[in-house]
Amino acid sequence: MPYGMKALSCDPARVRGMSERLIVSHYENNYGGAVRRLNVIEEQLAGLDYASAPGFVLNGLKREQLIAMNSMILHELFFDGLGDESEPGGGLQKALARDFGSYARWRSEFVATGKALAGGSGWVLLCWSHRDRKLVNQWASDHCHSLAASTPILALDMYEHSYHIDFGAKAGSYVDAFMGAVRWSGVERRWTEIGAAR
Amino acid sequence: MPYGMKALSCDPARVRGMSERLIVSHYENNYGGAVRRLNVIEEQLAGLDYASAPGFVLNGLKREQLIAMNSMILHELFFDGLGDESEPGGGLQKALARDFGSYARWRSEFVATGKALAGGSGWVLLCWSHRDRKLVNQWASDHCHSLAASTPILALDMYEHSYHIDFGAKAGSYVDAFMGAVRWSGVERRWTEIGAAR
Amino acid sequence: MPYGMKALSCDPARVRGMSERLIVSHYENNYGGAVRRLNVIEEQLAGLDYASAPGFVLNGLKREQLIAMNSMILHELFFDGLGDESEPGGGLQKALARDFGSYARWRSEFVATGKALAGGSGWVLLCWSHRDRKLVNQWASDHCHSLAASTPILALDMYEHSYHIDFGAKAGSYVDAFMGAVRWSGVERRWTEIGAAR
Amino acid sequence: MPYGMKALSCDPARVRGMSERLIVSHYENNYGGAVRRLNVIEEQLAGLDYASAPGFVLNGLKREQLIAMNSMILHELFFDGLGDESEPGGGLQKALARDFGSYARWRSEFVATGKALAGGSGWVLLCWSHRDRKLVNQWASDHCHSLAASTPILALDMYEHSYHIDFGAKAGSYVDAFMGAVRWSGVERRWTEIGAAR
Repeated sequence: MPYGMKALSCDPARVRGMSERLIVSHYENNYGGAVRRLNVIEEQLAGLDYASAPGFVLNGLKREQLIAMNSMILHELFFDGLGDESEPGGGLQKALARDFGSYARWRSEFVATGKALAGGSGWVLLCWSHRDRKLVNQWASDHCHSLAASTPILALDMYEHSYHIDFGAKAGSYVDAFMGAVRWSGVERRWTEIGAAR
Repeated sequence: MPYGMKALSCDPARVRGMSERLIVSHYENNYGGAVRRLNVIEEQLAGLDYASAPGFVLNGLKREQLIAMNSMILHELFFDGLGDESEPGGGLQKALARDFGSYARWRSEFVATGKALAGGSGWVLLCWSHRDRKLVNQWASDHCHSLAASTPILALDMYEHSYHIDFGAKAGSYVDAFMGAVRWSGVERRWTEIGAAR
Repeated sequence: MPYGMKALSCDPARVRGMSERLIVSHYENNYGGAVRRLNVIEEQLAGLDYASAPGFVLNGLKREQLIAMNSMILHELFFDGLGDESEPGGGLQKALARDFGSYARWRSEFVATGKALAGGSGWVLLCWSHRDRKLVNQWASDHCHSLAASTPILALDMYEHSYHIDFGAKAGSYVDAFMGAVRWSGVERRWTEIGAAR
Repeated sequence: MPYGMKALSCDPARVRGMSERLIVSHYENNYGGAVRRLNVIEEQLAGLDYASAPGFVLNGLKREQLIAMNSMILHELFFDGLGDESEPGGGLQKALARDFGSYARWRSEFVATGKALAGGSGWVLLCWSHRDRKLVNQWASDHCHSLAASTPILALDMYEHSYHIDFGAKAGSYVDAFMGAVRWSGVERRWTEIGAAR
């Protein structure tokens, strides 16, 4: 069963502080590229005789499958988080305060973790950890990095394709723009759906 | 809130094909080490002024936090999967056949992915992908690698500490021993709890 | 002894097929950033009591040191390789043919390895392997990846900061532009200096 | 041209503090495995049409090639460093003092970097950096990590296969045993050969 591209869940012409050209290029080339690549990888894996395939072929293909899958999943979450300036609702804001000390402290950690990835690649993910039933800010330096057994509810893409067209090397300005464009209603919906709000 | 070690969920004296010495060393040193390390990392992060901390300090600490967290979470799952020889029940076996072509095909992929990691480090995880509502065998070459937005239900540890005491470099024999020691009742319980069985 | 930035060894206004803005941003922000970061990391390491420092602090700092050092070294090599269209001289061209089958085959591997890294991060390095006294095209997906005991003589930067300002997501066009801008005289000088030409 | 295994350059029956079984298993399975794997990877790469091969196939194979090559090169260096207790000669000891503050400080950093990698995988390498003409202790968490444009002269293998058979999880005891078994005459020979002694 091939993987399909989801429609762009934000309006690329109305993401506060980012150009339509940047969003559309990001969606078509980087997200679309991951989905298309994943389908070809899946085909190759489907044709493999696992019992006789050399280990290095498996290591290569399974790693590339993980990169493409996570790139697909995280990009969908990233676009879904974009819109106009907003604030998290009371319930989620309380949960952030409970798990990080204060909402401001959460924001400060999330922003700084993004800025620390400037000039390289990676993600910052606000995740719900099912083991500890709490919110965690997760750092990633490539698509493969992910908190085990967690549900990410907000994703900040720090790959340079997320900002260079608009911001050049000014990764810090991009992180600030992102924080001013988070569509918190979607974040809360996800947080509620996984039962984390209880 | 400090992280606590969970009690060893398998009986180390009765894991089919592995010695008590191996299991106890693995639990105390590698799992225990991860939990103890995580608590010290959390303390350092709690004391950090995010707005002024250099990026490389953040990158270092947040990466080490992710390594320790995932090591903790995946080791708990690993030990919980160990016991005596068993087979997956009908519902899970059907789901494996649906998502991998056949139960034998799933097993062949899982085993081969483990053996491909011989001599290095990593994990093989049977995961439920929430995006696609299907089971996926996920490859990892270190603790940080994890399928985003997934719930792992079976974990095969391929770090060499999992087998060298008993098997030396014979990673293949260890993988076979693991497959003959999977306590499938626990795997099914997790699979049911996350609503994947529906 | 602090690390110093080397002067830009190409003329940014005259790199065939790339804009001055791209080269200058790359030099000042990404190369300069690595050198500045390295100096702060070295200070922190100098102040460390190794016998009592927690392992995760060491792992974090030493990894960041390696990232910054390699970023510094490889960026210097990258800029030194840029100029106007040229071809490798007879001696180096023969060595490429000897070690890759033909000069065209070398070029095809080097170009394809670069294009495979599109949308992510990494390097392609033409290296002299001292163990086998031959030229090798080395793949890297981050700054830390490097062929042990080798001397790189040509570096293609595949981090997205190398091309997004000029080329957007068209990484392939950037790789082609790079191949049309290699200043081979510098590559040959390095190859001769390390005694590989003998 | 296939890669060949080099003869074991230490006497496995006379490495101070390590068993013959450990050294022989390490040499035959881990070093030998890398060389054998590399030859098969090279065959696959030789048969590839680079212009049409999918990017993920290239990324997979070139990464596995780098892992196997570095594993081969670093294992040869590791075995060549083993023997009986010794101390570096005056020239090298002075160079270590010059570049690290004191010989004791060098040793303290090298040992602590090794112990920090306990329970995982990696290497600690004493390298000569050709850019800065100085000695550097380089950290690695997998075979791919290497200081660019450097010559390693002493290698401490921190993969768990290096110690688990003899030491179980006691990585610290293994690092101490290694430090008491370094054959410094070989380290100095390499240091002299690369012209670093001048």
